[in-house]
Amino acid sequence: MTEPYRFPESMKLYHRACAVIPGGIYGHTTPVTTVPGAFPYYARSASGGRYTDVDGREYIDLMCGYGPIILGHAHPEVDSAAAERQRHGDCFNHPSPLMVDLAERMVSLVDIADWAVFGKNGSDMTTWSIQVARQHTGRKKILKVAGAYHGTDAWCTPGHGGIIEEDRSQIINVRWNDAQQVREMFQRHANEIAAVIITPFHHPAFGDSSLPDPDFLGTLRTECTRTGALFIVDDIRAGFRLHVGGSHRYFGFEPDLICFCKAMGNGYPISCTVGREDYKVSASKVFLTGSYWNNAVPMAASLKTLEIVERDDVPRRLEQLGRRLFDGLDAAARQHGFSVVCSGPPAIPFMSFSDDPGFHRMQAFAALCAAEGVFYHPHHNWFLCAAHTEDDIDTAVSVAGRAFQRLAASPVMTG
Amino acid sequence: MTEPYRFPESMKLYHRACAVIPGGIYGHTTPVTTVPGAFPYYARSASGGRYTDVDGREYIDLMCGYGPIILGHAHPEVDSAAAERQRHGDCFNHPSPLMVDLAERMVSLVDIADWAVFGKNGSDMTTWSIQVARQHTGRKKILKVAGAYHGTDAWCTPGHGGIIEEDRSQIINVRWNDAQQVREMFQRHANEIAAVIITPFHHPAFGDSSLPDPDFLGTLRTECTRTGALFIVDDIRAGFRLHVGGSHRYFGFEPDLICFCKAMGNGYPISCTVGREDYKVSASKVFLTGSYWNNAVPMAASLKTLEIVERDDVPRRLEQLGRRLFDGLDAAARQHGFSVVCSGPPAIPFMSFSDDPGFHRMQAFAALCAAEGVFYHPHHNWFLCAAHTEDDIDTAVSVAGRAFQRLAASPVMTG
Repeated sequence: MTEPYRFPESMKLYHRACAVIPGGIYGHTTPVTTVPGAFPYYARSASGGRYTDVDGREYIDLMCGYGPIILGHAHPEVDSAAAERQRHGDCFNHPSPLMVDLAERMVSLVDIADWAVFGKNGSDMTTWSIQVARQHTGRKKILKVAGAYHGTDAWCTPGHGGIIEEDRSQIINVRWNDAQQVREMFQRHANEIAAVIITPFHHPAFGDSSLPDPDFLGTLRTECTRTGALFIVDDIRAGFRLHVGGSHRYFGFEPDLICFCKAMGNGYPISCTVGREDYKVSASKVFLTGSYWNNAVPMAASLKTLEIVERDDVPRRLEQLGRRLFDGLDAAARQHGFSVVCSGPPAIPFMSFSDDPGFHRMQAFAALCAAEGVFYHPHHNWFLCAAHTEDDIDTAVSVAGRAFQRLAASPVMTG
Repeated sequence: MTEPYRFPESMKLYHRACAVIPGGIYGHTTPVTTVPGAFPYYARSASGGRYTDVDGREYIDLMCGYGPIILGHAHPEVDSAAAERQRHGDCFNHPSPLMVDLAERMVSLVDIADWAVFGKNGSDMTTWSIQVARQHTGRKKILKVAGAYHGTDAWCTPGHGGIIEEDRSQIINVRWNDAQQVREMFQRHANEIAAVIITPFHHPAFGDSSLPDPDFLGTLRTECTRTGALFIVDDIRAGFRLHVGGSHRYFGFEPDLICFCKAMGNGYPISCTVGREDYKVSASKVFLTGSYWNNAVPMAASLKTLEIVERDDVPRRLEQLGRRLFDGLDAAARQHGFSVVCSGPPAIPFMSFSDDPGFHRMQAFAALCAAEGVFYHPHHNWFLCAAHTEDDIDTAVSVAGRAFQRLAASPVMTG
């Protein structure tokens, strides 16, 4: 179905990479996470809502670097703010004033935030947050949702290589949206649970996204309040795309700590945790630092990014684009006899086929679309950015329509 | 001894910070790690080997951002390579070709390296390395040196807040340079030790640096080889300052994995682990990723930094500057009746007073020097960079001389 070696430059690089990098490409961008051979392996450049691979093919970028790009690649205002800062130095023996500005900005932006700290990775923040909860409560256990992604640290990594049983012995997994199971776990482990950590909606790989039930959220809040456990939201993937003040505002609930990353700096490396006053002293007791964590440039980029997200009401724009995409995909699928599931909030959309548990049809669909210059990930939620236009969405829908048509005409593919 | 409120702008910022950041400033740059009130708390700008605080005072920067700055702040060649890359995008759905270039560069630069991976923090790499060792050996225990700093992850953080016993139950601590204790531990925990991790020289906070005994290094190598444990070097602090091919070349030993960070990108956020072919398959099995880990800009900065470090033989230059500093400090101290200990390799120098176990005299010395525009850290090793000049070193020595003089004249200070 896909012609071999359509990506000669990607393949040349990958061949070189496999000699000097374990697996050639690792982590979330490894080729096996899309459709090996049907997607490029290396990017050359990007601008706005599109990127170009090393073979010179351009794509409408519906992944946005897996989330960091919220305003568009190589965004002039953000890059200019960062470059201006870079000229005067970046990595000092002290923080720059921008760290104070950014902490104040987060506190004013996020309703539950009385304080903020900054890191580089999402994992830096999710792991530190559970440590703050353990410090505050003197308890060990962390309740999370099975299949939820909270980063690569040993207590939660989706990988199993190198993990020992001690890493996860204090982690309790519950099913997403299962309020009853939450109540059971809080009963079974009375006064042992330091924190609950959830993503604001469930966005597993190889699965549809699932929005939170009010009963589930309400139960988590009630049980945390009743027992003194901290309610932590991992807003790393969704943050700033649904609501400029945090995704809990979009869904209507009140956590105690929130972890941000990705969209916060439009690609510049920064992550953040904010929290309530009650936990500020405990937060100050959990050691937190890194070689580049005071760097001024990503903080300048983040201040500018947040300013634009708010100024241009980017979440509203992304929701509009996402609805247009959902409507277009649904209509195109129906036209060719397919039933698809559009899941997730429209601003962070995903689509799968109704009767395709192994995602094989979805992979064939994504491969066909990639060949026509639209990057739909086959089994990971997508990301939109403010640089996408209605024309981009309409083109993405047209390309999807032709893919549905080819799939319908090919019994092997629809198998 | 120090006048209060000499840093009005720093204090204003710190006052604001304390309202919105736990502890105001956290981690290694928190004011309590130097001399509160005697050092600035915030940096405004930096260029070459100097930086300026928010009150407009300039310092000869003998900390270099705690290590990342090896060529000088706001280095034109590095910043220009990074800016050129930034214009074409940074954070994609795939790696850029620079990732392959940089992995090949690391493999050619470091003798034991057959492969490389990249992260953002030093901790990303030290923790991943011990996981690779656990994956490879099927064993749990990690042998490290008591008081050695390997980052902020739970198994090794110098802090205790939020840590549970499971985090460290498989960590064995030995004394630095104690070969006999290493042999004992390998006997006691026969076939349970997955890896040894050491820094190439011992650089504890609140202590003199200590170079490795050949017997200690030889014993570690022998025991690792005999038992199949991995010998990991945490070269995050020293890497590229002692030898462009890794600090093990400077001291003459052969590890299995090496973690780099800090100087690798002259301040741009990147870290790296390299390893031998034997461990490449195991390395590919330990999940490793982060939101910004494929970012092209820090890789462009790192390639340029490494090119210049090699081209200009920066380690040799730093050694010359360090020897000049050591000689100058030693002579100035003697002249005023003090005995000082100059420790560490000259390129990563440190000085303390011989009879000052609590570092009180050292704090007084550092405070006096800071007031005259030279940043000597009172209880953490220092860092030199290629932008420092002989004049900078001579100025730093003159300032130190005046500090010794004042200390000698003040019985209180000489405590």
